[in-house]
This record gives sequence, C-alpha cells and structure tokens, in this order.
Amino acid sequence: MKKLSSTPKKDGFRMPGEFEAHEGCWMLWPERTDNWRLGAKPAQAAFVKVAEAIAEFEPVTMGVSARQYDNAVNHLPDCVRVVEMSNDDSWVRDTGATFVTNDDGVVRGVDWEFNAWGGLVDGLYFPWDQDDRVAQKICGVERKDFYKADGFVLEGGSIHVDGEGTLYTTEECLLSESRNPHLSKQEIEEKLGEYLGIEKVIWLKRGIYNDETNGHVDNIMCVVKPGTIMLAWTEDKNDPQYEISMENLKLLENETDAKGRKLEIIKMMLPKPILISKDESGGVDMVDGTLPRDEGDRLAASYINFYIANGGIVYPLFNDPNDTLAEETLRRAFPDRKLIGIEAREILLGGGNIHCITQQQPASKLSGDGTN
Amino acid sequence: MKKLSSTPKKDGFRMPGEFEAHEGCWMLWPERTDNWRLGAKPAQAAFVKVAEAIAEFEPVTMGVSARQYDNAVNHLPDCVRVVEMSNDDSWVRDTGATFVTNDDGVVRGVDWEFNAWGGLVDGLYFPWDQDDRVAQKICGVERKDFYKADGFVLEGGSIHVDGEGTLYTTEECLLSESRNPHLSKQEIEEKLGEYLGIEKVIWLKRGIYNDETNGHVDNIMCVVKPGTIMLAWTEDKNDPQYEISMENLKLLENETDAKGRKLEIIKMMLPKPILISKDESGGVDMVDGTLPRDEGDRLAASYINFYIANGGIVYPLFNDPNDTLAEETLRRAFPDRKLIGIEAREILLGGGNIHCITQQQPASKLSGDGTN
Repeated sequence: MKKLSSTPKKDGFRMPGEFEAHEGCWMLWPERTDNWRLGAKPAQAAFVKVAEAIAEFEPVTMGVSARQYDNAVNHLPDCVRVVEMSNDDSWVRDTGATFVTNDDGVVRGVDWEFNAWGGLVDGLYFPWDQDDRVAQKICGVERKDFYKADGFVLEGGSIHVDGEGTLYTTEECLLSESRNPHLSKQEIEEKLGEYLGIEKVIWLKRGIYNDETNGHVDNIMCVVKPGTIMLAWTEDKNDPQYEISMENLKLLENETDAKGRKLEIIKMMLPKPILISKDESGGVDMVDGTLPRDEGDRLAASYINFYIANGGIVYPLFNDPNDTLAEETLRRAFPDRKLIGIEAREILLGGGNIHCITQQQPASKLSGDGTN
Repeated sequence: MKKLSSTPKKDGFRMPGEFEAHEGCWMLWPERTDNWRLGAKPAQAAFVKVAEAIAEFEPVTMGVSARQYDNAVNHLPDCVRVVEMSNDDSWVRDTGATFVTNDDGVVRGVDWEFNAWGGLVDGLYFPWDQDDRVAQKICGVERKDFYKADGFVLEGGSIHVDGEGTLYTTEECLLSESRNPHLSKQEIEEKLGEYLGIEKVIWLKRGIYNDETNGHVDNIMCVVKPGTIMLAWTEDKNDPQYEISMENLKLLENETDAKGRKLEIIKMMLPKPILISKDESGGVDMVDGTLPRDEGDRLAASYINFYIANGGIVYPLFNDPNDTLAEETLRRAFPDRKLIGIEAREILLGGGNIHCITQQQPASKLSGDGTN
C-alpha cells in the first residue's frame, strides 16, 4: 500500500477516540520465553480469553509468527482471524499502526518509529526490527495507505485522545531521553498535532509507579468520552503511587481540553501492590539484554488498562478486593457497554495489560474496490 | 476461520473456471537460492512484472517471508498488497487454496495436502511444511472458511476445470506413486468430485516433456471456455513432445465433457526447446535434496502456462519466433481480453511459469460483516 509523504493533519485526518466505532481489533500472539513464563503458555491462555471477549463485540485479528501459527490457530476460536506476522513481542498497542480517519470515513495508518521502549538507552530487549514492521504489515493486510513518521519514536500506549483535538500523555515517557531527545517539548507537540490531528496536548507528569514503559499514559489514565477522563487512584499515602496520582489529579483539575471544557475526572482505585513470586520469576528465561523478571519486583497493575470495544469493555481482574470496585466504577462510566473482566495476572507479568495487547481499527466506509 | 468437516459438493459448492470473475490474484515472492539463480534477483524482477501486469485487471496480493518483506515491498508497486507469509517456494498455484463458490456467491477454500511434488519418492525439495500452510493462511487473511482435504495430495496446477462439472488432469501426475498411491483411479475421481463439485474427469496421459511436476496439466492444456480447450503442440516429429501432444489430442478428440459437448481444440505451438545455460546453472546454490539446475537440461517451456485475469491474459514470452504465433493464437481464443506478454525465462528456470505462480480468488458477494 502507499507510504504517504504528507501528514494526516494536512490531509484532513484525525485519530478518533477509542470509544468511537471500530472495524475490529488487532492483537499479537505472545511467545518469547524471556518475557512470558513457562514457554508463554499461561499468557497465551489469557490472550485467548481476551480475544474471545473482544470478539463478542467486533472482529479480532491475531498476528502470529510462523513458529507459533499452528498453536495459535488451534487455541483460538474460529471467529478470530489468524494472520502470520513476525514480531519481537506482543504489544500491538505500541507496535501496531495508529489509525486516523477523515470525514469521508477513509481510514489510514500512522507508522511510528519503534525502539522497544527506549532503544539502546533503556529499551526492554534487543533487537526490535520485527516489531518496527508490524504497523506497516497491519496496513498491508487491511489495504490501508499509511503515513511513516520517520525519525519520531512513539508507542501507541503513550497517548490517549478524545477524538476532538485533545491528546493526553506523560512527560515521563515522551520527554524521556530514550525517545526523541533531539526534539523539544514544543516540537513533540507539533509532531503529535501533524500526525494525529491534535490541537492541544495535556501533559501528565508520571505514569504508574515502576511502569517499565517510562510511564505510559494508558496505564494511569484514559478517556471515557470527550471531557471525561478516568485516573488511576490510591488512598494509601504510604504508597509511592499516591504522590504520582495526586500530582496528576491537580494538573488535570486545572486543565481545559481542546474544546475549552473543564475535565470531569473519575477516580479508579488501584489494586493492592502485586509482586512477582519466586515461581513466576523462575519460569522466565534469563537472557542478557532483556529486562529480567525478578522475584519481588512490583508490577504496574492498574484497572485503567482496559479495552473499549464496540458496545463493550474488556478489563483486567487481579483477584483483588478492588476487582468489584473496578467493575462498579466502569459500570457508572460506561452505562451502555457490556463489561467483561478477564483474569489478567499472566498478562501483567509480561509488563502490560489488556489495553497494551490490543489496537482498535476504526470503522471505515468501504469504497468500491474494497480499499480506502 | 472455520475448518469445515463436510465437502464442497455436499454443501453445494463448485470450483469456477479461471475465466469466470475474480476477486483478485495471489502470488508468493521467490527467494530460495537453491532454485532461483543469483539470489533470486532476476526471478523477483520477473515476478514484479507479472504482478504489475495482473494488477491492471484485478487486485494482487503478494505473500512474502519476513526475511524478504522489505525487499518485496520496495520492488513492488503500491497497488500490490504485500502480506507476510512463510513458504518453501513461490508456487502458489500448487500450495495456495483452491477456491470454490456456491450460487449465493459465497467463497470458501480447499486446502489440499501438499508434498512438494512427490514427497520422499520424487519430491523437489525438503522440507515443505511452510508450503503446506499457505492455503490455510490465505483463507485466514481473506476470512474464508475452508475444507481440509486430509490425506489427499493435490497441487492446483495438476487440474483444470470448466466450472460446469468437467475436470482435466493427467495420469502422469495424479496416478503417480508419489501422490496418492493408496487410492485407485476411481477413488481419486470421487475425491475430485467431492472437493470441486466435479461430475466428469477427463484424463490426459502425460504433460509437457521433462516437466518436473510429473506432468501438470496446466503446462500442456487449459480451458478457454466450457467446451473449448487449448493444447500445447509441436509439428516436430523428432521432438519427444510430439508423441505426447498427439496422444493427448487423440484422447480429447474422442471425449465429451460433463455437459456432453464435443471439445473444440485449439493448438498452441510450443517454443523451440530451451536448455539451461552454463551461466544459469552456475547461479544456483547446489544443495543436497533439492532438484539441481544442470547445464543443458531441457526446460518445460509452454505458452499454455498463462494466467486468465478479469479482462486480460498474462502470458509468457520466450524470445522465440513462436512468441508472435502465441499472441495470435491467444487473440483468436480470447478476443475480448487484453493480452500482456512477459519475458518469462527467469520464471521458467525455476521450474514453472506464470500460471504456476498465480492463484485466482473468485469473486464473492460480501455479507454484512465482510466474511462469507
């Protein structure tokens, strides 16, 4: 498909909110044994549950390496489309295309530069060349033209948008020296504006405590609808997370979005701290150059890391008393969507959660030849 | 997608003729250096020309390994969709799905067992496990349910159909001990009937002289339209091909098709014998277990090995005086189609031609959710 040399903003395209209509959802099958314990089998079982849940609401496509193709096909339900797609790990939120649309319902991709959350500075593994081709390959399968954001490092999980001109991100990630140290804060805002049709960037400070992604926004905050956001919260003042959430709350309370709206902020209570067990750590291959999964390390668990599907919410459960509270919070925030909770510890152990392993493809209006 | 346990015939499906309307065309990118000379670069250039020509008439998708993904994308025009698809070689006619349709315009795949043209008896390379997954992967990308013809070895190039109940094949291939030695001729006819909606099988004896596929029918004969076939021909009585073509001619002159029609037979003159040169042989890796490309070996060159696209014919040229005659023959046989000839020696050197490296996907009527 065509690699476009213009930018989405120039061509009249914008990134829609995740709560807008989807064509479907992309996922990638986990397999690397230096990140997922026990040959990735427990994680694969959890990914199957996520795919099944989302498939209740919209078509799901699972990308998988040639090595794991048969295994993925045999574990997934027939309704999930499986396509071969090499990758270095399964975080399609970060490696997949970010889709943009225009008023005619044409959908195009944005292919960011990907460096495994920090490249040679503080990246999580090496190499990441197959990850960096995922966005283009998704656009290929879907016959979508795409914009290549050459020289601009971004992961999809480090941004959230309201579809009406506002983008939310964290300084911890986007201003990290391991992403785009050659660009000023203002230049980064300009890039986000050009590639996503954004008018205003709202900067949170830091993401969830000990998040290995340099504080991706999608683990600490999300957009419920334009003007309404959900923020990860704790009342435990002894938790280092308290200061982070409080700092972001104060910032957001004093912000207005691109349309000039004050923000309604819904607090989402976090689960109690979750640590990697000895057994869990022992199930992961120890490989130089890959972030280790050490016993006792605190995981960046957060209910915010859910996926908004057509008519549904697929969210993580942690076998924690706050699981019920999370459900109640989601029910109030999304009264018209069906809620499906998935036991997500095995996904969390790999370093992210349901939002990180999914990527929505917005609905399009098909043109005559099936391309658009 | 769903692996169906019924058969196409039971479900009311049939294989349409290649001359019927297509949704598009599948190809696979050549790369194996023990079959394609000079790192497969000359073959890749020829495949690009074939893809470009077919793309004038219908959408083309090129499957390519992860290794060659960038290179394929960078050589192919934007209009050709590129998808990752592991394979052992690029003969999608033989490894791809054979598509069947029903009266409602639903399209499904048939996934034959593939054994590299003869398995451990006289197969052309080892292993062939990635080839054997190509059909299923194509159906996956296209969201088509498919029938798995378990235990029945067949290559798409070993059959031609008229879409009205008649199938043409060769005894040399389908009765070879390297395909389905456990099945009688009658049992093979029953399999073809069940999986392709066939009423009558017409058996030619042998295919083109020295054809390494055990005489695939698609190199010696094709169906122009129901009741009209084209047969590879030579007037040179000293050529071993003469006896083969004459034997088939006599058979066909005395046959009627599934509808009871006598056959109109158009003779297509072959090019003069084409031998592998020393240079050409020297450019191919010498690997144990892969059919060698020896200097002086006669290639199975035939103009019959063309592709029928929507409104077009893409056919091979051999830099032979009969190139012009081939064009004239095609113009008379297909007066309403645009003819595009492609210099095809580099494809021929790999063991086949344009029909062998293409697979049509018949037109479908899309249902509401894009699947059918």
